[in-house]
Amino acid sequence: MFPKRALLSPLFALALALAGCSCQYEPTWDSLDSRPLPGWYDQAKFGIFVHWGVFSVPSYGSEWFWWYWQKQQQPSYVDFMKKNYPPDFQYQDFAPLFTAEFFDAKRWADIFAASGAKYVVLTTKHHEGFTLWGSKYSWNWNAVDTGPKRDLVDEVATAVRANGNLRLGLYHSLFEWFHPLFLQDAANVFKTNLFPTSKSLPELYEIVNKYKPEVLWSDGDGDAPYQYWNSTSFLAWLYNESPVRETVVTNDRWGVGTMCQHGGFYTCTDRYNPGHLLKHKWENCMTIDQKSWGFRRDAQLSDFLTIEHLVATLVETVSCGGNLLMNVGPTHDGRIVPIFEERLRQMGQWLGVNGEAIYNTSAWRAQNDTATPGIWYTWKPQEKTIYAVFLQWPTGGNVTLNVPVVSEGKTQVTLLGYAQPLKWTSVKPTGLTVFLPSFSIGQMPCYWAWTLKLTGAG
Amino acid sequence: MFPKRALLSPLFALALALAGCSCQYEPTWDSLDSRPLPGWYDQAKFGIFVHWGVFSVPSYGSEWFWWYWQKQQQPSYVDFMKKNYPPDFQYQDFAPLFTAEFFDAKRWADIFAASGAKYVVLTTKHHEGFTLWGSKYSWNWNAVDTGPKRDLVDEVATAVRANGNLRLGLYHSLFEWFHPLFLQDAANVFKTNLFPTSKSLPELYEIVNKYKPEVLWSDGDGDAPYQYWNSTSFLAWLYNESPVRETVVTNDRWGVGTMCQHGGFYTCTDRYNPGHLLKHKWENCMTIDQKSWGFRRDAQLSDFLTIEHLVATLVETVSCGGNLLMNVGPTHDGRIVPIFEERLRQMGQWLGVNGEAIYNTSAWRAQNDTATPGIWYTWKPQEKTIYAVFLQWPTGGNVTLNVPVVSEGKTQVTLLGYAQPLKWTSVKPTGLTVFLPSFSIGQMPCYWAWTLKLTGAG
Amino acid sequence: MFPKRALLSPLFALALALAGCSCQYEPTWDSLDSRPLPGWYDQAKFGIFVHWGVFSVPSYGSEWFWWYWQKQQQPSYVDFMKKNYPPDFQYQDFAPLFTAEFFDAKRWADIFAASGAKYVVLTTKHHEGFTLWGSKYSWNWNAVDTGPKRDLVDEVATAVRANGNLRLGLYHSLFEWFHPLFLQDAANVFKTNLFPTSKSLPELYEIVNKYKPEVLWSDGDGDAPYQYWNSTSFLAWLYNESPVRETVVTNDRWGVGTMCQHGGFYTCTDRYNPGHLLKHKWENCMTIDQKSWGFRRDAQLSDFLTIEHLVATLVETVSCGGNLLMNVGPTHDGRIVPIFEERLRQMGQWLGVNGEAIYNTSAWRAQNDTATPGIWYTWKPQEKTIYAVFLQWPTGGNVTLNVPVVSEGKTQVTLLGYAQPLKWTSVKPTGLTVFLPSFSIGQMPCYWAWTLKLTGAG
Amino acid sequence: MFPKRALLSPLFALALALAGCSCQYEPTWDSLDSRPLPGWYDQAKFGIFVHWGVFSVPSYGSEWFWWYWQKQQQPSYVDFMKKNYPPDFQYQDFAPLFTAEFFDAKRWADIFAASGAKYVVLTTKHHEGFTLWGSKYSWNWNAVDTGPKRDLVDEVATAVRANGNLRLGLYHSLFEWFHPLFLQDAANVFKTNLFPTSKSLPELYEIVNKYKPEVLWSDGDGDAPYQYWNSTSFLAWLYNESPVRETVVTNDRWGVGTMCQHGGFYTCTDRYNPGHLLKHKWENCMTIDQKSWGFRRDAQLSDFLTIEHLVATLVETVSCGGNLLMNVGPTHDGRIVPIFEERLRQMGQWLGVNGEAIYNTSAWRAQNDTATPGIWYTWKPQEKTIYAVFLQWPTGGNVTLNVPVVSEGKTQVTLLGYAQPLKWTSVKPTGLTVFLPSFSIGQMPCYWAWTLKLTGAG
Repeated sequence: MFPKRALLSPLFALALALAGCSCQYEPTWDSLDSRPLPGWYDQAKFGIFVHWGVFSVPSYGSEWFWWYWQKQQQPSYVDFMKKNYPPDFQYQDFAPLFTAEFFDAKRWADIFAASGAKYVVLTTKHHEGFTLWGSKYSWNWNAVDTGPKRDLVDEVATAVRANGNLRLGLYHSLFEWFHPLFLQDAANVFKTNLFPTSKSLPELYEIVNKYKPEVLWSDGDGDAPYQYWNSTSFLAWLYNESPVRETVVTNDRWGVGTMCQHGGFYTCTDRYNPGHLLKHKWENCMTIDQKSWGFRRDAQLSDFLTIEHLVATLVETVSCGGNLLMNVGPTHDGRIVPIFEERLRQMGQWLGVNGEAIYNTSAWRAQNDTATPGIWYTWKPQEKTIYAVFLQWPTGGNVTLNVPVVSEGKTQVTLLGYAQPLKWTSVKPTGLTVFLPSFSIGQMPCYWAWTLKLTGAG
Repeated sequence: MFPKRALLSPLFALALALAGCSCQYEPTWDSLDSRPLPGWYDQAKFGIFVHWGVFSVPSYGSEWFWWYWQKQQQPSYVDFMKKNYPPDFQYQDFAPLFTAEFFDAKRWADIFAASGAKYVVLTTKHHEGFTLWGSKYSWNWNAVDTGPKRDLVDEVATAVRANGNLRLGLYHSLFEWFHPLFLQDAANVFKTNLFPTSKSLPELYEIVNKYKPEVLWSDGDGDAPYQYWNSTSFLAWLYNESPVRETVVTNDRWGVGTMCQHGGFYTCTDRYNPGHLLKHKWENCMTIDQKSWGFRRDAQLSDFLTIEHLVATLVETVSCGGNLLMNVGPTHDGRIVPIFEERLRQMGQWLGVNGEAIYNTSAWRAQNDTATPGIWYTWKPQEKTIYAVFLQWPTGGNVTLNVPVVSEGKTQVTLLGYAQPLKWTSVKPTGLTVFLPSFSIGQMPCYWAWTLKLTGAG
Repeated sequence: MFPKRALLSPLFALALALAGCSCQYEPTWDSLDSRPLPGWYDQAKFGIFVHWGVFSVPSYGSEWFWWYWQKQQQPSYVDFMKKNYPPDFQYQDFAPLFTAEFFDAKRWADIFAASGAKYVVLTTKHHEGFTLWGSKYSWNWNAVDTGPKRDLVDEVATAVRANGNLRLGLYHSLFEWFHPLFLQDAANVFKTNLFPTSKSLPELYEIVNKYKPEVLWSDGDGDAPYQYWNSTSFLAWLYNESPVRETVVTNDRWGVGTMCQHGGFYTCTDRYNPGHLLKHKWENCMTIDQKSWGFRRDAQLSDFLTIEHLVATLVETVSCGGNLLMNVGPTHDGRIVPIFEERLRQMGQWLGVNGEAIYNTSAWRAQNDTATPGIWYTWKPQEKTIYAVFLQWPTGGNVTLNVPVVSEGKTQVTLLGYAQPLKWTSVKPTGLTVFLPSFSIGQMPCYWAWTLKLTGAG
Repeated sequence: MFPKRALLSPLFALALALAGCSCQYEPTWDSLDSRPLPGWYDQAKFGIFVHWGVFSVPSYGSEWFWWYWQKQQQPSYVDFMKKNYPPDFQYQDFAPLFTAEFFDAKRWADIFAASGAKYVVLTTKHHEGFTLWGSKYSWNWNAVDTGPKRDLVDEVATAVRANGNLRLGLYHSLFEWFHPLFLQDAANVFKTNLFPTSKSLPELYEIVNKYKPEVLWSDGDGDAPYQYWNSTSFLAWLYNESPVRETVVTNDRWGVGTMCQHGGFYTCTDRYNPGHLLKHKWENCMTIDQKSWGFRRDAQLSDFLTIEHLVATLVETVSCGGNLLMNVGPTHDGRIVPIFEERLRQMGQWLGVNGEAIYNTSAWRAQNDTATPGIWYTWKPQEKTIYAVFLQWPTGGNVTLNVPVVSEGKTQVTLLGYAQPLKWTSVKPTGLTVFLPSFSIGQMPCYWAWTLKLTGAG
């Protein structure tokens, strides 16, 4: 009965809104999955993920510190605690040490914007259950009551919005490793739902109403089905009635079995990077520090991905229809350490030259070149423009693209960041060889991957 | 329809129990108030109150530290914090400093038993909301998750029971000063009840089921009516179905207006000591440190009541039909400091001699003497024995009791702790003058108040 | 050649002072031991010893905590640390926790004065080496640089002097358990003296010049001879040139073998109480908490001496020619806990009545009675007055003193605190039986020991 | 009379040593300055400076934190403390927080060696006075007694030596900002010398004897003359008798007025980089973080010098006859953060290709090119080889060197890291233009500065 969402005119939406509740969506996956993803998200391509929490205090090993230490009792964690803390020290005792004294949300937003990212996703609550805002449902286990004594979500939200180039996303973990009510529900094989009723759902409504995120990044089903989490009802509210119903996007982590199946964009697994085009919009969330989402003091230089690797990952992801969500872990005192800042600013340098091949593009008919390795395509259909990003500068000075169909006199080739058109010659059966300029190192438009822009080709 | 509780035979109770629910009581005050108080309580006369919590960490000023500091912003508290703690230190940050490393529940129970007390009431949760047991409804704000990392209620309960001479009581505050859900309900003029539903009621059921207290000492209505707290339903469960339904006693603090009106024994106000007989069983809860329930480092010797004062208070209270609940505040590290231990052991010394005039007695027709000041009466009707406790040893060596009706040849007078019968002579219009032995100080049976025991008088 | 000190007139002393150096004493024991003890000390009889330092932070077991824990590795100390502190926690890390936030020197002085004591001896530096003043020779290991960040010696000195009834004494440990320079000297069998030269001697001069103590209570020879400590030279300076040369008294702990042999008053051993008269002035230093000089959180009521015991100890000590130095241990935060305050004020109550038999008295020809146990004598020769203190009130109401020689018509007997003269009768071969008043408990002048004053006897 | 040091044969040195004391040098600058610098130092060219201490705990602003905060009371420091620490927190209270739990000296040595450095200079004691070894003269203010509880100097020394490619240097501050004995000497206009006698000199002997450094990097004259510090006597001992007398080098900071005048190599000022050849061997000590020697949490990416800048500084310094001592500041927990590791490894990458033009070279007759900017020369006289390092890759593909005198047929030119000889043509009046290969970016031997090697030129 309802019109297809793609056809939903603003006027009609207004009419629905004035009618009290624009209840287009029902709390079923069939209905919820029919909602078109708000367009801004696919255009944005690149976001920053921020993992911050009490785990940033020990900042050792992983943001799963609590679990590894006390549930799995991994020796390195157990030893770390034995060696450095009093015998009865508990994870909860880290909270007062989460000080955030160097935290400056404006500075964060500046760095994130300088990276070329278009959205920022902050962990408002990880599996530890500690909320970075003063949740009414997490009294004394949140950043306002203890530790920073500040509403960190509000500060990030305000700074991100003030920046103008960034949208706000909020990560939220459904389950909590050690919450006694969750554990009780789990012991009851999820036939009781004390935890969602008194904790996770009230919190979700609270953060959406309070901070109006445009990405709601859900995580942590705790092996419980979406019915337990009451996810479909919540999403129906989110899409129909919430203050961000027009622009919010969500992901696919809403209960056991929903990943890669239901929800907004698909995340499938952490660091998901399929290497081929998917039918459904997806996101590759990954980390600059290869081994952890949260800040780790034990990270060494070799653990941080190089800028070459990061740029390549962005290019591959976007070519295959994904967005890249690149993670940094701030310190317990609120700093984004220089090695992260360096990588982010390098991303921004690269996007300053090559952003045209990334933002607002679509996946092309081919994702990478059939014959030349290390070449990835994107496309702007309206502008009939093909972008071919090559990850290595060829020793011979020319690049062969085997997929585009070119025509003499019509096809034009340029290198982003370089004014002159490039010479090329067609090859068989399809494609072209492009002759690159002979740059000295100081003349290169960028250093880590380069983009050929083709017009008049198909 | 139900038989009067006083007639309820154990057999009948068993029959009711086997029938599934012995639902004698309905959730109305009329019904609940009709329940006779289990007899042990009136016989016990003397209990120890223990105020312990996060407030024991600053241990400054009062157990209301948090309220005085942050809500009322009393200068002495504000200054104390400014002078001694980092600028952003919050009350919650005291919790990890609640260490209890010297806490030995058996030692506590020994001291309490040595005082002559028959029951112990522990603050399982004061208005700060911190639970001394690992409440599922107070995650990360309880003594198992942080601070002591021990179930303090369980340790006290176990030691108190193991002692054999003591019964367990649990204090529980309904409201919590700063719980956001309580504040939200309050802002809604208690038309919502998020807080009782998700916090105070689940906790009450939890402690009763888990620790099986025989005193449930409720406090802190937060200016909300009993309907908000759902107190009558809870009490109906407590009296009908709970594991302690046969022996549990409660007090009268179950909602605005219930004090001195409804419930079990009446407490009316803190340090309630009316000086005359009440129709309803009552309790005088008071503190050895006159200025605080919680331990205060700033307490000076002059703040501690003398043993003379404490004995007198017990005598007055019992004479007027009350029980005395005498409070001590342990330290953050779990000690009952020597000045408290001294007062408690002195009480025990006195009761060792004079307990016969206290335990299992009733209020007599007169509470204190009509003419001689400082004389208080108790009574054992079955044994037809009158006890007259005199607080000052008379300079002249004789005491006149103006209320008892005596008869020559029948009335016998002794001094507790002294074997020989005393000489006496009758006075007009009623009463007698008793001639005390001429003790040197080393011969006295006790030092702070003395008991004349009269048989054959009325 | 020098005049006997007893004859030294103030004028003559002035003359010597004007001459530049009144060098009566040479740095030999013969010369130093010839100095008469300034008279105030023997008249004072009763002083308070205060042990305070970093050991007051763990306040567990003993003020020898560091030694027992790390040198002797006594299991209870090792376990205490393992159980309650991080693995690498060192004794030095206790220093910042020595906070003294409740320390009020005036209040201390008030309590000390109320006890009837006439002098106060504070540990300016115990064997741990931590100086309670900002010693130039103990940088960063003193109370001004870390911990209290206050000159505790100055505050005590100022308050004690302001009180008017108290004199200042300073305790100082020569050796330090773990000072590397002392250990090096010790390893060199004290043939080097790096430590006295750079540490202990400069400190002694510093505290005498700065705080002008009238008792200098030396301790801790570390098994080194007085020659190593250069004690005789220091004492020569102290007696000849220091600002307190007229009134200062010292003790006998100035090197191996000097105890009970050389110096000012003799202390011989801790808790020295010989029970008979000594030829040399001596001091009984002892503790209210029987098991420790420093504050111990693990002290229980039974560890504190009763007031009866304390009064008896004072009486015995003074009868045998000694002074009593009664120790209290303040807490790390600067409090004298109520149990100590109570004992001290009780001492003061007793001395308020019986002080006449203590202060300014001399040892009599007999110290205690030959036949009646628990009777101790003191004497005022100028006033020809004998005092007999009896520790137990006799059941029979009369006391027999077998030593005094009495004469009918001349000898008068009173009880201190009671106006009327007492009846007595002479006994054979010498002595008298005194008939005590028949007090009720409220009429007694005091509760723990009583004094008979005899004039006209010998 | 003494042979020139340069001629001193090992055998002769042995003979001197056997003679008891090889006392070539007298404690005068004339004599001390005549000592030739051991050759290894000039050959090494590149060292790493490490500033580590209690200042690494606040790690805010500067390693002069204590001074700026408490002496100068700079508002940013005062505010930082007010905002983040309790009111009475002192600098000394940072010491227990100096934890070093991530400190792994082997890992440090690996990173330093990977940077291409040949020596490492560690701050054993900065102006704060805290010694990183367990100095006997700095009891309880050193890394063994508090904080790390480890001998950090020993761990670094051992790891540096074990590496095989590194020599050990120790930095030592003569004066200490707040040491009371230094302040007293200063108040006495350095007419007393309590401080050098009891503190700085014993320490210098201690570290030389214990750790056998080959660089002794003195600092901090405290405005006192070398006579006060007794520097010449110490240096005479160091050169004549110390265990490192054969190989040790020192610098020029031994008292007011000695900088750039006396001692071993000259440091003149911090970050000294004259840009022209000096007659005396010198060292440019500078920092990767432009604003601080100690680790600063408030450092941002833009504060860290780029690798281009660092390489250029090395090249300039070496061309002008200096050594470069490049500083990193480890964190309080013992990490060299990734941004430092990155810069150091980049230095190592560059030296891996270009080290031939740096190590074991001499200053040439010209330091930089007379006409082409950004070209710096070094020289190996024995091998008759000139190195010309150019900092920018020329757009035109050729470089003109105007200083070398070339001859056709004899002069050969190569690019370090590239096998083939390069073509060149001579220019007037002297010099040559070298034609560089036309590399694609992936073919370049390095990225930040390139070296032309000329043989057969002069």
